[in-house]
Amino acid sequence: MIHPVILCGGSGTRLWPSSRKAYPKQFAKLLGKESLYQSTLRRLSGEGFGPPLVMTNETFRFMASQQAAAIGLMDAQVVVEPCLRDTGPAILTAALMLERDEGADALMLVAPSDHVIADVPAFLSAVRQGVDAAQTGALVTFGVTPDRPETGYGYLELTAKPNGSGAAIALASFREKPDAETAAAFLAAGTYLWNGGIFLFRTGDVIAAFEACAPQLLAPCRAALEKGAEDLNLFRLDLDAYGSAEAISFDYAVMEKADKVSAVPLTCKWSDLGSWDALWKEEGPDANGVSTNGAVTVIDCADSYLRSEEENMHLVGLGLKDMVVVAMRDAVLVAEKSRAQEVKDVVKTLRAAAAPQADDYPRFHRPWGWYETLCIDERFQVKRIMVHPGGVLSLQSHHHRSEHWVVVSGTAEVTVGEQTKLLTENESVYIPLGAVHRMANPGKLPMYLIEVQTGSYLGEDDIVRYEDVYGRG
Amino acid sequence: MIHPVILCGGSGTRLWPSSRKAYPKQFAKLLGKESLYQSTLRRLSGEGFGPPLVMTNETFRFMASQQAAAIGLMDAQVVVEPCLRDTGPAILTAALMLERDEGADALMLVAPSDHVIADVPAFLSAVRQGVDAAQTGALVTFGVTPDRPETGYGYLELTAKPNGSGAAIALASFREKPDAETAAAFLAAGTYLWNGGIFLFRTGDVIAAFEACAPQLLAPCRAALEKGAEDLNLFRLDLDAYGSAEAISFDYAVMEKADKVSAVPLTCKWSDLGSWDALWKEEGPDANGVSTNGAVTVIDCADSYLRSEEENMHLVGLGLKDMVVVAMRDAVLVAEKSRAQEVKDVVKTLRAAAAPQADDYPRFHRPWGWYETLCIDERFQVKRIMVHPGGVLSLQSHHHRSEHWVVVSGTAEVTVGEQTKLLTENESVYIPLGAVHRMANPGKLPMYLIEVQTGSYLGEDDIVRYEDVYGRG
Repeated sequence: MIHPVILCGGSGTRLWPSSRKAYPKQFAKLLGKESLYQSTLRRLSGEGFGPPLVMTNETFRFMASQQAAAIGLMDAQVVVEPCLRDTGPAILTAALMLERDEGADALMLVAPSDHVIADVPAFLSAVRQGVDAAQTGALVTFGVTPDRPETGYGYLELTAKPNGSGAAIALASFREKPDAETAAAFLAAGTYLWNGGIFLFRTGDVIAAFEACAPQLLAPCRAALEKGAEDLNLFRLDLDAYGSAEAISFDYAVMEKADKVSAVPLTCKWSDLGSWDALWKEEGPDANGVSTNGAVTVIDCADSYLRSEEENMHLVGLGLKDMVVVAMRDAVLVAEKSRAQEVKDVVKTLRAAAAPQADDYPRFHRPWGWYETLCIDERFQVKRIMVHPGGVLSLQSHHHRSEHWVVVSGTAEVTVGEQTKLLTENESVYIPLGAVHRMANPGKLPMYLIEVQTGSYLGEDDIVRYEDVYGRG
Repeated sequence: MIHPVILCGGSGTRLWPSSRKAYPKQFAKLLGKESLYQSTLRRLSGEGFGPPLVMTNETFRFMASQQAAAIGLMDAQVVVEPCLRDTGPAILTAALMLERDEGADALMLVAPSDHVIADVPAFLSAVRQGVDAAQTGALVTFGVTPDRPETGYGYLELTAKPNGSGAAIALASFREKPDAETAAAFLAAGTYLWNGGIFLFRTGDVIAAFEACAPQLLAPCRAALEKGAEDLNLFRLDLDAYGSAEAISFDYAVMEKADKVSAVPLTCKWSDLGSWDALWKEEGPDANGVSTNGAVTVIDCADSYLRSEEENMHLVGLGLKDMVVVAMRDAVLVAEKSRAQEVKDVVKTLRAAAAPQADDYPRFHRPWGWYETLCIDERFQVKRIMVHPGGVLSLQSHHHRSEHWVVVSGTAEVTVGEQTKLLTENESVYIPLGAVHRMANPGKLPMYLIEVQTGSYLGEDDIVRYEDVYGRG
């Protein structure tokens, strides 16, 4: 039995505008109908795998459990890291939890949630090789067999050339991202793999390695776990304790120093989708080097990626060469593809200009579901709201706006003042300015509602909360 | 007194997506807060000018009168050409109307509605020179002094070099769009002007020229006028008569053949905004050759035009060279700037693919105002609706949908079944499936309303009309 530990607290900006701080790439549906996080969960489920342990943060905790539930994984255990402390403390804490619950011999497989591995059988066959090595006490890392002299990844140097058996090979060293010449030499040597950031070991072995290589992390992580608390169906680590742990990566804290480290070669296609360039490649460019996603028309383009995220937004490229175009309802990126790495600087520029598109996503995710603004003007705003089955908004009132609610799908339980009633599709209710009100979805299907606000001030901060099941102030 | 005749029946596609069949470039706010049509009306109003005569078609009739009213021109006379017959019949019909009402000596100035002339005093000074010539019986055309060997325009060949006085010069010939070598020779010679499509003459003189050069047009145009009818505050030419006129341009029918033709040089800046390339130039590129419009962030770009038409849609260009990017809520164009002329082919491609974005505009203009879809799903749709003061929608019912209306600005007079009532901001009404209903704006300000439709079929063709003040079936 392997216990998957999924790391999904990151929020990269190099795939802006599709990936933003409020809704990062692991949760976005970048390829196909599932998010990368969901594909990762699915890849590590089924026979031989225990319920996943998901390490995430405050902001993503509901997204993590909702997206797991949406693919039928009801037993995912979500652990909230109350502050950012890099992968070292996260993996140690997960190991301590699993050791406590499953014993020191329990196998844990640590994986990022934002990588693409399409060939699941090949991946699982590598995992089986990893299990053999881990059961001898090794810390196993999975390395991707390079197919090009990539300068964007770190490398694993092996002590021997892989012999095709797929078996783990003892590691000689970790190597930083190389320059082009070094990368070419690595590729030619045949004894280097890309560092994929996937690990497999027994809980007892990795804890022992932490004790040997990074003993300072033990006390804070143990305390974060002991003083942590169940909160709804999440487990929240203790902020003070976890915050006192050093922020350090797992590679740096342990793997680069530990004794018995080996690597299993992954021979299947793999990508960390680190930039739009990678997504262009992943989508399968045609003979002209063009790949597309969504409502796109391509006229005489080459070596380009064109992506429209909105069904009703038609993107047209005419005569493009080496370009990336990503169109969303609130933001459009047009960039030279060879400069895809600089997209993270675009986000910094937008932040400096206080553009909300830098970090906000047009669909705002909340514990109870999501909302999006359809139209906003000086004295009115129209929102589309989705409430999950069982979702309950806070009991609230507003000083400056009235609201009209029209249910367009599902069933809503609506409280206005002293009265509570059920509304179904095509029914509406009016919330006068100042009235205490609440909306919930008591049904088994998602509930969709259109809200029309009118008033002199429409900011999200005009809210008085009387009660909130999610503990928000 | 000069009588302006504004031609605004065209619908070019080379500025797609901003210009579409349903909302072409003369009505779009391409530069600044006024449309090109409005700027044209304004340029030809004030002292010395009579009320404008606007020649347009069925589709644009309400836009033409509403945009005139919006800039305070309440006396514009809109003439509806019931079918497309090019500029020959349109100008002859306008001349016949003006001769009838103002006499054979009345001066008429014919101008396209989609050109940019920023220096109004310089333009008016040229018009005064034109008046002098026209009063001697000449057919005057205005030609733009070239500042480059442009191959995209037709040329006027003068019989003499302009002497700087600005006076009209007799015309030697009309020349088609030249090749690059010829254009360079034209520029060097100094006796060629770009054909600006602006004309000035007395009604009697131009009618006489039609009689001499294109006599076949007289009977159909006279009949179209005589059998035409007032319709609301428009004048509609008779379809059968107008339709029997030959479709022919004014240049070809008259100017190239007539005897006494002269040209007045226009020395001010002029553009026909024939492509995105022209708009890029008109917006005033910076030192890197970059010009922008709307919410745009430019990082390391050169020789490019970036335009976002939506306030809440942020467009980012990174490393662009020689590009045009135009972002709208339903369509995004990214094109090599040097291929801007091919944008018309983009529209053909989209039409062939039945993409609504080819011809429809996201804001649908109607006689009573406009509407736009904010959100559409399988079983519901949300629209934002604006009704002009005095606007009245048809009395109607639907077989497949119910509607919730929420007034968000202004006052609505709403009829549902036998009841009529007034709704003001923040009031709502429900229209059950099948109920006969109507909406009107009895007020002095525009009325804005949010409509939430729910039902199994939401097409615009689910409508039974009982009565319509605009004569729609």
